[in-house]
Amino acid sequence: MNIKDLGGEFGLIENLTQDFSQFDQKIKKGIGDDCAVIDLGERYQLISSDTLVSNDHFNLNWSTPEQVGMKAVEVNVSDIIACGGTPKSILVSLVLTRDLDAEIIQGIYRGIKKKCDKYEIDLIGGDTTHGKELVINVTILGVGAYGNTSLRSDAKVGDLICVTGDLGGSTAGLEYLRKFKDVEKLKVKFPYLYKRHLEPVARRGVLQCVSTAANAMIDVSDGLASEVRHICKESECGAEVDFSKIPLHMETKLCAQKLGQSAEDWALSGGEDFELVFTVSLENYEKFDTGFKEKITVVGKILGGNGGVWLLKNGMREELKGGYDHFS
Amino acid sequence: MNIKDLGGEFGLIENLTQDFSQFDQKIKKGIGDDCAVIDLGERYQLISSDTLVSNDHFNLNWSTPEQVGMKAVEVNVSDIIACGGTPKSILVSLVLTRDLDAEIIQGIYRGIKKKCDKYEIDLIGGDTTHGKELVINVTILGVGAYGNTSLRSDAKVGDLICVTGDLGGSTAGLEYLRKFKDVEKLKVKFPYLYKRHLEPVARRGVLQCVSTAANAMIDVSDGLASEVRHICKESECGAEVDFSKIPLHMETKLCAQKLGQSAEDWALSGGEDFELVFTVSLENYEKFDTGFKEKITVVGKILGGNGGVWLLKNGMREELKGGYDHFS
Repeated sequence: MNIKDLGGEFGLIENLTQDFSQFDQKIKKGIGDDCAVIDLGERYQLISSDTLVSNDHFNLNWSTPEQVGMKAVEVNVSDIIACGGTPKSILVSLVLTRDLDAEIIQGIYRGIKKKCDKYEIDLIGGDTTHGKELVINVTILGVGAYGNTSLRSDAKVGDLICVTGDLGGSTAGLEYLRKFKDVEKLKVKFPYLYKRHLEPVARRGVLQCVSTAANAMIDVSDGLASEVRHICKESECGAEVDFSKIPLHMETKLCAQKLGQSAEDWALSGGEDFELVFTVSLENYEKFDTGFKEKITVVGKILGGNGGVWLLKNGMREELKGGYDHFS
Repeated sequence: MNIKDLGGEFGLIENLTQDFSQFDQKIKKGIGDDCAVIDLGERYQLISSDTLVSNDHFNLNWSTPEQVGMKAVEVNVSDIIACGGTPKSILVSLVLTRDLDAEIIQGIYRGIKKKCDKYEIDLIGGDTTHGKELVINVTILGVGAYGNTSLRSDAKVGDLICVTGDLGGSTAGLEYLRKFKDVEKLKVKFPYLYKRHLEPVARRGVLQCVSTAANAMIDVSDGLASEVRHICKESECGAEVDFSKIPLHMETKLCAQKLGQSAEDWALSGGEDFELVFTVSLENYEKFDTGFKEKITVVGKILGGNGGVWLLKNGMREELKGGYDHFS
């Protein structure tokens, strides 16, 4: 979930968060995280919503309809996982264009079904209407263990900032396609980047190790820089990220070289990697077993509230900027 | 919620509905009703999603942004009410156009806030992105008393078909605006139709009387004909609706006269009245007090499964056709 700062608009609404204990439904967390969290008494319900717009979040020249459907589910699953939860059910709302081929719609649903099967998610409803461009909105409901969510606001001063897997791969694939407009070539030359961009997968496997150990957690949907800033904002802390520590896949580096761009910048600003960024105390980090430590990378640490949010690069400290902006 | 029949696509997915009792979350009702219903053990959670697309579901030449925001919430509240529930929280996902004035966005949020205040609904999340046209998707969560939902599938043979309030008013307002393109004139000449079309309100007041007495229930979002057919399909029954009994407001009749159209056809096919259609046994109907009976109209009755779905008009039986189709 990605609530953009619309200036004062959300301010109007944030005040609405109330406690409806007379209905036994408490909002533990409203706007400002990957998921909203409703306290159901003996467990948490996690809810998130993500919208994919044609030619922005996906491109049917490059993606098959099935890949688009799969992605629509994965980006939402990623939000549930980032809060330490298990996805349970989705609602799919589609805005279809009038000239859209029935095969495309069927393909999108095949992709959705494939992922529903994979995660044992129920498709419980939605809405279908028409408009000028294809829009796919998925709302996802999940469950989380009581008292054990990892919110953006849970970072502690001194925590290490860790990243799962590698970053920038999805943007690398996108940039390659933008330049060469040849999805088959991407698939042959950079098979990993093809997968990362067109068939992203939420980072579920590490959750068992991370969820009890981590403090704050967020998924990388808008680039590492933006996600770290989200954590700092919600946790009222500072942070520093070491440019040289950003984990990159070999194909991402090669692709950046070929295109004359910076792989690290893709990682910081590109988005859609759907890896997890989490903060963890040094003590808990030390308890991770060696095999798990190899799957994650420490990229920085959490500073005090007045410490600023920094990128360490070539021995210098600069402001941690960047992050995908849909309104740029 | 309005799942259109997309041929085979939803068929693929309906098979997914499973019982996840290991997670203590049972889907009582998935696709096919105003809301999905999740069994939370001691109560039901109701979930629905509705999408409004600019120039289809609203028109900023005629509606103020605030009216658009209000409508986006009311149409979703109506779905929760149609299942006999109480709205609790919403997620709002917006697709904004790049040139959209900030005042319009603020106005939409003001409208949303106004309705959140009215119904004591929390805005708990959502998503904002951009695209070629303004799209507002609202997902609503509500609670229902355990065992006391009124689903489309709950109609019984012999039930009376009742309608709250009057029908066709929203379409009357729309048709007037389409013809004269003058919202101020509509407001002066037909103040009731102005309200019905631009400031629709979910029919909440009758719920206390209806909810325990009714069998099936649905809100009128796509016209009476379409809603009765939905009930018949889900309840595996037939029905007959008496054309002459369709409740019409005086302004709706006058407007139809002025435009040379049929007010009854608007009621049958026009949609967006957000009244409730419910079926009730004769026995329970007789128990309604006189004051309540004046607020509702018996428009027909439920027939057996092979009885067909009929409109009685001028002493003849014809097939009950019509209903707003977004794909027409």
